Amino acid sequence: MTYCIGMRLDRGLVFMADTRTSAGVDNFAVSKKMFTWEVPGERAITIMTAGNLATTQSLISLLEERSVSEQERDPSILREPTMFQIARLVGATLREVIAGSSPTGQTSDDQFSASIILGGQIKGGKPTILMIYPEGNFIEITDDTPFFQIGETKYGKPILVRAYDRQMDFADAIKLLLVSFDSTVKSNLSVGLPFDLQVYETDSFATDRTKRINAEDEVYQEIATGWGDALRSAFELLPSYEL
Amino acid sequence: MTYCIGMRLDRGLVFMADTRTSAGVDNFAVSKKMFTWEVPGERAITIMTAGNLATTQSLISLLEERSVSEQERDPSILREPTMFQIARLVGATLREVIAGSSPTGQTSDDQFSASIILGGQIKGGKPTILMIYPEGNFIEITDDTPFFQIGETKYGKPILVRAYDRQMDFADAIKLLLVSFDSTVKSNLSVGLPFDLQVYETDSFATDRTKRINAEDEVYQEIATGWGDALRSAFELLPSYEL
Repeated sequence: MTYCIGMRLDRGLVFMADTRTSAGVDNFAVSKKMFTWEVPGERAITIMTAGNLATTQSLISLLEERSVSEQERDPSILREPTMFQIARLVGATLREVIAGSSPTGQTSDDQFSASIILGGQIKGGKPTILMIYPEGNFIEITDDTPFFQIGETKYGKPILVRAYDRQMDFADAIKLLLVSFDSTVKSNLSVGLPFDLQVYETDSFATDRTKRINAEDEVYQEIATGWGDALRSAFELLPSYEL
Repeated sequence: MTYCIGMRLDRGLVFMADTRTSAGVDNFAVSKKMFTWEVPGERAITIMTAGNLATTQSLISLLEERSVSEQERDPSILREPTMFQIARLVGATLREVIAGSSPTGQTSDDQFSASIILGGQIKGGKPTILMIYPEGNFIEITDDTPFFQIGETKYGKPILVRAYDRQMDFADAIKLLLVSFDSTVKSNLSVGLPFDLQVYETDSFATDRTKRINAEDEVYQEIATGWGDALRSAFELLPSYEL
């Protein structure tokens, strides 16, 4: 399993992905699930992946190769004029990879399946986030649904729904993502630290504000332990139910 | 979907079940999922069900019939000497019902599948809770795992894990269950009000402390709206993460 969130704020985008990959509890490893492409001053693209590792690695390799080799550079993630066109490209590539492994085709419950969060900004457009399904189709973020999750989405959703605020600054947004990730990590062994974090500020066209957050990270530890206490205090404040 | 929790405290047991049954979002209804049997002063038994409604209704009808008709009264949920034996009886009956509908047998992913929480006390024994799988086997609650959930278990789990305390009084335990149910209801349309609540006090051998909690219930409303505010205040208290 996996857990990734892409969130849109007024001031930009925030992405977080865990790094645990597993084929059973006795076979797990650390594997990056967040990938970035950049043309300085012109575009900044981030992709996060969930699902079959062979599928997602092939997808990223194909996108990479097509972005570096001159002959194959068209279609390229570095050339497409809009985020919408990049989503079409990534969706088509994803479908192609799954179709190559799976006799039954690219459906969500296929074992070779994968889901993608794509986010970023291209000059002339606004920052946006899209979620791409294994079938290659996709949806775009709206003000009503200001974040996308892929992987193990349920444990960490209630706090996102309650505490999200589009005017948040990045420091609070990262805190929110860490609380959501912490609830998930504590409930599902197949989601694990370290977490990859990226913050994208609108019109910066740069992908360099990133960090890998380890279990030893002091602020993360403070948030993880503090959240249990904070929840219990919040709980105390509510009225009891006399039967 | 469904959501039920059975929880053990030092002073007894608490059960809560939602009542929404659905075969798609355009076909839903209210249906009881909590059932009790009692021999005053001798035993109190509670069963909650999740899964295929035809399966769970057949199961309850068979258990009911075998507990009322003189000829078929053996084996009976009102006669078995221990909770363990009742769990075996319920498990066998469940397997029998599923096998009658399903050509492929009683596995968890079968469409006729169901899961059961069984709780209560028989004189001479302690109050306990067991979870019965579609295959008919079961597990018993322990101090390390002091509650069982069936149905849509993920959204409501983080708060249970953080705020449970075996020395809680019933009023606080009900509050905890309501918070857990509220998070689930807000995230999954197939879990819905009203909720059925039952509190069992150790050595009371009575099943009469029950209540159906509606959406209009004042304390529930206070908890549901108050929890959002409480969560946000708790969240404010944590340190922000500066990147």
